[in-house]
Amino acid sequence: MRINLICIGKTDDQEIIALIKYYLPRIPKHWNFELLELPDIKNAKHLASDLLKKEEAKLFLNQIETSDLVILLDEKGIQFSSREFSAKVDFWMGSSVKKVNILIGGAYGFSEEIYQRSNEKISLSKMTFTHQMIRLFFVEQIYRAASILQGKPYHND
Amino acid sequence: MRINLICIGKTDDQEIIALIKYYLPRIPKHWNFELLELPDIKNAKHLASDLLKKEEAKLFLNQIETSDLVILLDEKGIQFSSREFSAKVDFWMGSSVKKVNILIGGAYGFSEEIYQRSNEKISLSKMTFTHQMIRLFFVEQIYRAASILQGKPYHND
Repeated sequence: MRINLICIGKTDDQEIIALIKYYLPRIPKHWNFELLELPDIKNAKHLASDLLKKEEAKLFLNQIETSDLVILLDEKGIQFSSREFSAKVDFWMGSSVKKVNILIGGAYGFSEEIYQRSNEKISLSKMTFTHQMIRLFFVEQIYRAASILQGKPYHND
Repeated sequence: MRINLICIGKTDDQEIIALIKYYLPRIPKHWNFELLELPDIKNAKHLASDLLKKEEAKLFLNQIETSDLVILLDEKGIQFSSREFSAKVDFWMGSSVKKVNILIGGAYGFSEEIYQRSNEKISLSKMTFTHQMIRLFFVEQIYRAASILQGKPYHND
């Protein structure tokens, strides 16, 4: 199975890049986890938000095959504890799904096409974080899920 | 008014320190925001968790005056959106409270004494994050609250 975390635009904060790079090699190889940074839409600032979301949707959909699972990181989503999320990853691993795409939306969120294509929405917090920080938070949760599933001591609960 | 974010132990991750340092000077001066890092309890690894929490409680309570507000960052707390949280800070500013202490617990959370003394519990997420990252997340939320209250464009809602 593959897990792709797909987002729009490069991570440009050097500290966030360094923190993400700390976690990436610690995620099990057989999870085939990848952080895919799709190119920013050109002239995004001059596009109406609906049009921008539609253009971003095309980029996302290019990465998605018919049989893939599509998970949106979305404030309207359901929250999971880290342990619940690890159980979800474990379920994916044991299923016949070949690829799970986890999408982080652009500045205006997702277009209707993406909501239609999605299988599930996950929310990390009611609070809003920067798009760069969400990448870091989520990569750390993927690493944490692996630690939980491997039974490593990680959390005093 | 003063806002103190109080935690146990130094932030030792250089990238997290750098990210926190980006936000600190961007928080309004009159909020008198401070990140207080209390010293680690000695021999913490050899103490039973209840004893460790009691020792940490003493350190926390040393920082707290009778008239202070005490807010715990706690997984059992209530979640707020960034906008709701900014309204809460605004309310504190307009109140007669002189100091708001926001506490991040140690590895085992808070002792009963701290729960007894607290006025409110706030949760950032159902997910568990590292204690170092929580500092960064929360400093960014304080900065974000300031941006919201100053009417800066920050979030497409």
